[in-house]
Amino acid sequence: MARDTGSVKSPLPFDPIDAARQTWAARGWDEAASGMALVTSLMRAHQIVLARVEEVLRPLELTFSRYELLMLLDFSQTGSLPLSKVGTRLQVHPASVTNAVDRLEQQGLVRRVPHPTDRRATLAELTDAGRTLAAEATKALNDKVFTAPGLPTAKGDQLVRLLRDLRHDAGDF
Amino acid sequence: MARDTGSVKSPLPFDPIDAARQTWAARGWDEAASGMALVTSLMRAHQIVLARVEEVLRPLELTFSRYELLMLLDFSQTGSLPLSKVGTRLQVHPASVTNAVDRLEQQGLVRRVPHPTDRRATLAELTDAGRTLAAEATKALNDKVFTAPGLPTAKGDQLVRLLRDLRHDAGDF
Repeated sequence: MARDTGSVKSPLPFDPIDAARQTWAARGWDEAASGMALVTSLMRAHQIVLARVEEVLRPLELTFSRYELLMLLDFSQTGSLPLSKVGTRLQVHPASVTNAVDRLEQQGLVRRVPHPTDRRATLAELTDAGRTLAAEATKALNDKVFTAPGLPTAKGDQLVRLLRDLRHDAGDF
Repeated sequence: MARDTGSVKSPLPFDPIDAARQTWAARGWDEAASGMALVTSLMRAHQIVLARVEEVLRPLELTFSRYELLMLLDFSQTGSLPLSKVGTRLQVHPASVTNAVDRLEQQGLVRRVPHPTDRRATLAELTDAGRTLAAEATKALNDKVFTAPGLPTAKGDQLVRLLRDLRHDAGDF
């Protein structure tokens, strides 16, 4: 379901996730109440930040996933990476990389080029237009989302550390 | 893009979000580095927990959104709520509530009934099958996801509190 995003017009007079947690405990599911609150909070927090990011990227015809791909190439020394490495670094399936590169290629932001030494591999290479758009998108995201992500820096960094533990537990790195 | 989920087969030898953060700082975007890490961490953590939840719910032909709707009705005193209230409580758009209730109605889990006193309003009412499936889904989610959500309880609760601040800042409640 599409969530209401950003600033909800009529805030609830109570925290719905806290209410659910109390019901969970009342039904005797104490051991699961904390995890239910964690999962549900992540779902809602994701919707909030995704909506903000999409609002900034939509006029640039980018999704966050395609933006991440552009930035990954922008950060690389040569502005290009093997498709397989793109998938590993962004932790997405090969088919998803193919789709994203297809779309970025149609937009003229990325081109596929043969790997100079490995004939079986293909590189995704940033075009000049891709590099320009990546810089524009970064400036917009930095100004409109990343400098004020919804938490003061100390709490934000605490959140990042906890999510790092969760990502590590999931075997990401 | 569809993310790799759960346990990634080849963990990266470093934290990719931490690497991005260092690059952000190296480019002079210090004020945005923390927020970039926050947003990107939330995106990835969401994918991890969503994949676990969907794996449990898929055999029951439920999404997390439809599961939340069933539980909201299950928690109500009469097993029914006005559609408008469902949207407010789950913080989703009216059109999304309509779609979810349509689907749940096709599945025989919910039925639409006229509001007893307000002729303009419609109630979503849980069927017996809906109540049974909600209980089954809850047991499965409690056992397979919520009792071990990827963080020890103390850290999980800390995460919930930080995400609560973020949700509050966004005007949710």
